[in-house]
Amino acid sequence: MSAITFWYEFASTYSYPAAFRVEAQAAAAGLTVNWRPFLLGPIFAALGWSTSPFNLQEAKGRYMWRDLERTCARLGLPFRRPEPFPQNSVLAARVAYALPDDGARAHYSRCVYRAEFGAGLTISETSVVADILTEAGFAADAILARAATPEIRQALRQATEAAQALGLFGAPMLTTADDEMFWGNDRIDEAVAWASSAARVDK
Amino acid sequence: MSAITFWYEFASTYSYPAAFRVEAQAAAAGLTVNWRPFLLGPIFAALGWSTSPFNLQEAKGRYMWRDLERTCARLGLPFRRPEPFPQNSVLAARVAYALPDDGARAHYSRCVYRAEFGAGLTISETSVVADILTEAGFAADAILARAATPEIRQALRQATEAAQALGLFGAPMLTTADDEMFWGNDRIDEAVAWASSAARVDK
Repeated sequence: MSAITFWYEFASTYSYPAAFRVEAQAAAAGLTVNWRPFLLGPIFAALGWSTSPFNLQEAKGRYMWRDLERTCARLGLPFRRPEPFPQNSVLAARVAYALPDDGARAHYSRCVYRAEFGAGLTISETSVVADILTEAGFAADAILARAATPEIRQALRQATEAAQALGLFGAPMLTTADDEMFWGNDRIDEAVAWASSAARVDK
Repeated sequence: MSAITFWYEFASTYSYPAAFRVEAQAAAAGLTVNWRPFLLGPIFAALGWSTSPFNLQEAKGRYMWRDLERTCARLGLPFRRPEPFPQNSVLAARVAYALPDDGARAHYSRCVYRAEFGAGLTISETSVVADILTEAGFAADAILARAATPEIRQALRQATEAAQALGLFGAPMLTTADDEMFWGNDRIDEAVAWASSAARVDK
């Protein structure tokens, strides 16, 4: 079965609706999804940015929040803006890599996004992540302990380095087996069509 | 008849496919289109940028060119990257305001985009714009003379100031009578649905 890779950032606003859409779209085209959280912080830092471009550019940020609100309403997803924005997403991302497989990671990730952008919760707090894990049916203590190990820290570091090496500059990003990149919640349809060979354009 | 306003920049890459899509989409929903070219240069300069963000951020720029190539292929539009990028778009935009109405502006604008991003021509050159006008069926000399008048220069300056006052930060942008903004070629469907009252979300 062919796969598509879903690169996402737990602090990224448009990764929220994308996380709720990508799996059904991919499955309808006969594709599995690799769930790969990474950190945008180091990528932004390399550009000299200390925070999200949505904070650095006020007009763009104002637009994004309104657009996200409309997008969530259209998809039937709850929306509540978290403070501060962006949230520190290191813990949430490490926990994702402490889970056993993509299925668990997908379920957990959607629960994190719903807590963060649907309920406005602070996902940098261990107690919040513990509650998310518990409500999602996972053994919170064991997974949080595993998330703190050198192995898992290294897994997240490697994912972020791989993202940077691929030229990822934002999230969500979809990549295909033949190295095409599709940026944003808006590009899920195209990425899936591409990965399922329905709509290719030679380089 | 209700209207939607299409704000565009002649140097903007994604304004190219959008210019070829917006009118048919709007017409199908019973909407007319106000064609409003403006300049992003002063808006970028206010952020401290001396060129397009696609040049300032190399990875994002690399992605955009590939994505535009795919988008054009999907829509059956020719694609050839112009050099330099971005093109100086002041002359092309003044000429747009020298034309008598939105219908003429729409036709001319599509011809400019096809010359620029379909054939890689340099739209800052008067001879190139003259050829575009002639091939589009307009009286090139008379329109170029009118484009150089203080009245038309002022019309473009006012459009750019209006865009900045509305919080436009990129192009293309669609705005509705009730002051919603929709950014990008990707948002035409949503903007048209909104403007035709099909999909509103209360503020």
